[in-house]
Amino acid sequence: MYDFSSSGAFVETFTLEPYSKGSLDGLTFAVKDNIDIAGHKTSYGSPSWKDKHDAPSYNALCIDQLLEAGATCLGKTVSDEFTYSLDGESYFFGTPINPTVPDRIPGGSSSGSASAVACGLVDFSIGTDSAGSIRVPASLCGVYAMRPTMHRISEAGVLPFVPSTSTVGAFAGNLNTLGKVMGTLLRSENTTPEKIQNIYLLEDAFTLSNTEVAKALKCKIDALSSRCDANIISITLGEITNDPMTLDKLNADALRPLQTFDFLNTVGNWIENESPDLSPFFAMKYETVRNFDRKKVSGSLMLCEKMFNRITSFFQKGDLILFPTIPTIAPLKGAFEHMETAMDFYDRTMAITAFSGVARLPEITIPMTTVDNAPVGLSIAAGFYQDEFLISAVKQLFQ
Amino acid sequence: MYDFSSSGAFVETFTLEPYSKGSLDGLTFAVKDNIDIAGHKTSYGSPSWKDKHDAPSYNALCIDQLLEAGATCLGKTVSDEFTYSLDGESYFFGTPINPTVPDRIPGGSSSGSASAVACGLVDFSIGTDSAGSIRVPASLCGVYAMRPTMHRISEAGVLPFVPSTSTVGAFAGNLNTLGKVMGTLLRSENTTPEKIQNIYLLEDAFTLSNTEVAKALKCKIDALSSRCDANIISITLGEITNDPMTLDKLNADALRPLQTFDFLNTVGNWIENESPDLSPFFAMKYETVRNFDRKKVSGSLMLCEKMFNRITSFFQKGDLILFPTIPTIAPLKGAFEHMETAMDFYDRTMAITAFSGVARLPEITIPMTTVDNAPVGLSIAAGFYQDEFLISAVKQLFQ
Repeated sequence: MYDFSSSGAFVETFTLEPYSKGSLDGLTFAVKDNIDIAGHKTSYGSPSWKDKHDAPSYNALCIDQLLEAGATCLGKTVSDEFTYSLDGESYFFGTPINPTVPDRIPGGSSSGSASAVACGLVDFSIGTDSAGSIRVPASLCGVYAMRPTMHRISEAGVLPFVPSTSTVGAFAGNLNTLGKVMGTLLRSENTTPEKIQNIYLLEDAFTLSNTEVAKALKCKIDALSSRCDANIISITLGEITNDPMTLDKLNADALRPLQTFDFLNTVGNWIENESPDLSPFFAMKYETVRNFDRKKVSGSLMLCEKMFNRITSFFQKGDLILFPTIPTIAPLKGAFEHMETAMDFYDRTMAITAFSGVARLPEITIPMTTVDNAPVGLSIAAGFYQDEFLISAVKQLFQ
Repeated sequence: MYDFSSSGAFVETFTLEPYSKGSLDGLTFAVKDNIDIAGHKTSYGSPSWKDKHDAPSYNALCIDQLLEAGATCLGKTVSDEFTYSLDGESYFFGTPINPTVPDRIPGGSSSGSASAVACGLVDFSIGTDSAGSIRVPASLCGVYAMRPTMHRISEAGVLPFVPSTSTVGAFAGNLNTLGKVMGTLLRSENTTPEKIQNIYLLEDAFTLSNTEVAKALKCKIDALSSRCDANIISITLGEITNDPMTLDKLNADALRPLQTFDFLNTVGNWIENESPDLSPFFAMKYETVRNFDRKKVSGSLMLCEKMFNRITSFFQKGDLILFPTIPTIAPLKGAFEHMETAMDFYDRTMAITAFSGVARLPEITIPMTTVDNAPVGLSIAAGFYQDEFLISAVKQLFQ
């Protein structure tokens, strides 16, 4: 229904043939435009960045992995400005279509990669995720996606953003393709997967979500019990961490400050020195973060590490945790012109995405149901470095 | 005996006062010149890089952590060109002194940071390590140092080098200081440390070492049994990984290709576009790596991941493994003009440093003994994310 041009998902199309045959034979893919493709300038979602940087001579390492495994690259996709957004309405590169609900935003910052898969233009696509930039657009566009355990995939050739939490991940139209792509990138060995033991429901995230989103997902989860003999157990972040912690605080006091400090070292330094053209919305957000007090970094850094340790200690092999990927369906285009609407979306969404962000966990989002005909994603996370178990468990439960 | 100038360790001296009081009160430190200090250009060991980049507006996050904890920064230290060396003989910035054996090289690439501590000019210093750039100069200069579990410390504000294996770490004049500094950077909670269970000796690394180095270290290790009731067990890499793997192959077939691919994405892209002034030795090394076949990346990447998994599965909480940090004492200055001598040093050294590199392990090196009056370092590594246990165990065994 949408083609490469009308989808608005692509900034550039071309064909990179596979290097050899492999597990991804016959599959096509697209790449978010913060990831290097040799001979093509990387925009980072910013025309100024693109102007002031030469084209790279080498593909990002993850792209070489995919080409060697037999996949064909068809182009580069729209990214939000410096990947610093969750909405996908790029001031400079436009808003990729959310094909199921074209009057609604696709989500960002990997907006084009989600849209390209949702439109059926490629079999899979590559994105990056720090605070939800893969998970949010996947949920809003109704596609499958995975953000792996932090740093399991090489970030060589991926523009530096938030070194403490950035990850490379993938979108796909089905679980089988997602599993094959992630298996390639993660360099997974063929091993017998663990049996699913406990399935936890993160109640804080359901409470943060719109009533109809939470209700629609709970209804689907109830049907799960017939598909496996695992225990399904409601739990709170406080119970997991043995601390009076909430998702709101996890984002506001721990993850967001850390990400802001990191971001100022990467993109911030460049902006201060180059004074590039910035979109009005980005410029406003940048002004709010550039004066974060760097003389007081340790509180948020300590809290992140403590929560990572507590959450990592809690999850045993075979455990999964389920929660709404984000608290809403896709907002209508233009809705964020009302600052309160934007703030509410960002605050509640980042509270939920902070869970795997702080805990460095692998997380898969699947298009589980709809509300008002708009896709609603369910997230399934597993313990630190349990990526292969997570993929096999999600297939077992939802394929 | 050596001052800030005569040591050759510093590229720039200045004083950054601490932000507040904390666990590092009264301690002074120096920073390798691939790590950002606001308002000071970062050279990356390359005058061309320094010329073509503006000064950063923000300190690296790890520097803010140290200033907040009460430490005082006294300057920036010599780094090998693009941190891509293990010898510390910088064509552009000179060779920092190795004060115990001034006719010998200090080791690199964190040569100035090791020298500054060895000369007693600062209490501790910060460096980076991918293939041994902290461990090698620490061992050659006879100081304490730690390379933590990969990516446990934020690399925001540290110039991108080899994203898959680069780590930030520290040098110190004694174990107590090293423990306090690393505790700050790692954001360690106060917990009861695990008891030491098994102490393994990595026999492959002793075999790779010069006879007198291996013998001197074994002699010291024999005395350990009286200091703890842990089992001391000889083991090979093959036994750990249940695979016919050697340290040579681990470096040559797994880690070195991965590091090369990563390096071409970071520094390589910049060199291709900017054609900077390069030292003759670096230019020669660069020519040998720039044509690594990127159509065949998966073999080395798969092998790295497999070996990481095998080694991680082997080590239980409470386990340590001991080996010579590097196979020799510090070579004489100028010895590497003989290519065969340089190749032998690099090949054997990187075979040993590849162990923690591939396994992403925390490793501490301590000045354990001397051969021909030159320092000899012993390395102690623990399991993935067992940094806090490692620090407490090394204190218990060697303080």
